[in-house]
Amino acid sequence: MTVALVGAGPGDPDLITTRGLRLLRRCDVLVHDRLVAVELLDEAPPGSVRIAREEFDQEQINELLVAYGQAGLHVVRLKGGDPFVFGRGGEEALALAHAGVPFEVVPGVSALSAVPSAAGIPITHRGIAAQATLVSGHAPDELDYEALVRLTGTLVVFMGLGSLARIAAGLLEAGIERSTPAAVIARGTRVDEQVVAGALDEIADLSAGLEPPALVVIGEAVALRGRLRGDCGAALQVG
Amino acid sequence: MTVALVGAGPGDPDLITTRGLRLLRRCDVLVHDRLVAVELLDEAPPGSVRIAREEFDQEQINELLVAYGQAGLHVVRLKGGDPFVFGRGGEEALALAHAGVPFEVVPGVSALSAVPSAAGIPITHRGIAAQATLVSGHAPDELDYEALVRLTGTLVVFMGLGSLARIAAGLLEAGIERSTPAAVIARGTRVDEQVVAGALDEIADLSAGLEPPALVVIGEAVALRGRLRGDCGAALQVG
Repeated sequence: MTVALVGAGPGDPDLITTRGLRLLRRCDVLVHDRLVAVELLDEAPPGSVRIAREEFDQEQINELLVAYGQAGLHVVRLKGGDPFVFGRGGEEALALAHAGVPFEVVPGVSALSAVPSAAGIPITHRGIAAQATLVSGHAPDELDYEALVRLTGTLVVFMGLGSLARIAAGLLEAGIERSTPAAVIARGTRVDEQVVAGALDEIADLSAGLEPPALVVIGEAVALRGRLRGDCGAALQVG
Repeated sequence: MTVALVGAGPGDPDLITTRGLRLLRRCDVLVHDRLVAVELLDEAPPGSVRIAREEFDQEQINELLVAYGQAGLHVVRLKGGDPFVFGRGGEEALALAHAGVPFEVVPGVSALSAVPSAAGIPITHRGIAAQATLVSGHAPDELDYEALVRLTGTLVVFMGLGSLARIAAGLLEAGIERSTPAAVIARGTRVDEQVVAGALDEIADLSAGLEPPALVVIGEAVALRGRLRGDCGAALQVG
């Protein structure tokens, strides 16, 4: 195997998989997202080449992975969360496949459930949320708000902080209850995590001070957070 | 920390998180799902108590976790996938919180993306699938098929093999294209993984020989599997 597309997990460096860590520790080249924990970058061997993904565009990254792979080097492409959940791993995999470079995908813990769970929110819960939908906040005008409201489960918005006011308005116009519980979790699972929770019609205002990366969670399951936190002194811990 | 609700990952034992494995290796009591890999069960210390979840009902499991936790033992509740993605982790967390037992949740790699990715399918992909919805196959008559069809992303059905014919019919009646690509992945990420792929209107027949556990994936992103597999000699490997 020459190139591995590896999910680094949601933030906490302890949430990488054992296979991902093993590949990282023997790589020749590490191409990493900016948001990956520095503790993980430090796991790469001292002599390895380290490349920050943000210094290149996606096409250049694809070319880099192909070139290093064709040279027979052990390449780890370390991506936040899971490579195939809004991670553009599919594009890199297609480029490698097209060039005939052997590769593997090592899935990671996606922010999807890990970030809400660190904040005390199960995205599915018997009798409360039987389904979940994940969307990106990048194109809020393209979302079908009526369909999203009809699904009645948990809605998780990746990269949704900037478009939160638009998304909340879209859901409210489509008839969702104004009091629907919502939460915004910035830097989830990290030691400096911040959580803001409130009703959907006020969540955009409440989260005005937060900065990306942040995950937005909307639905009745968000209300379980109070029950999980309120019933005992211990906060829910993750990591 | 006395009780840890730990996600074991999607099947391949190498896909547990480093934190999950560390807790497992020092536990006094291990309460595990039947489907968790035996390689992981063998990581528990030799003198630890091992309890198979399926020998008890959920209420009894909650009571066991509370009792061992109150006794101050290190308890690992090892669950397939992620504890909060159709894992009933929320119920166990509520029982622990209610009893005042300190606990933590260690997220796991959910089958949601890991199982499709092992089969060469990215559940999100730029220009093809901008969103994904996960549902359970346990109550197919309660699904809102019109809303699911309107969402146009990837639909992932957990525990959906038994209700696949009903779910496919529901989607087709709601107007989805008959040729929509679909796949059923049994024992995903394991060495004995089986994948069946075809058009939605024939997928139930095609998968007649498969046995649970299986994940159903429906949507245009499923067609990428052929491109990822067809462009080079190397199969996509995971784990």
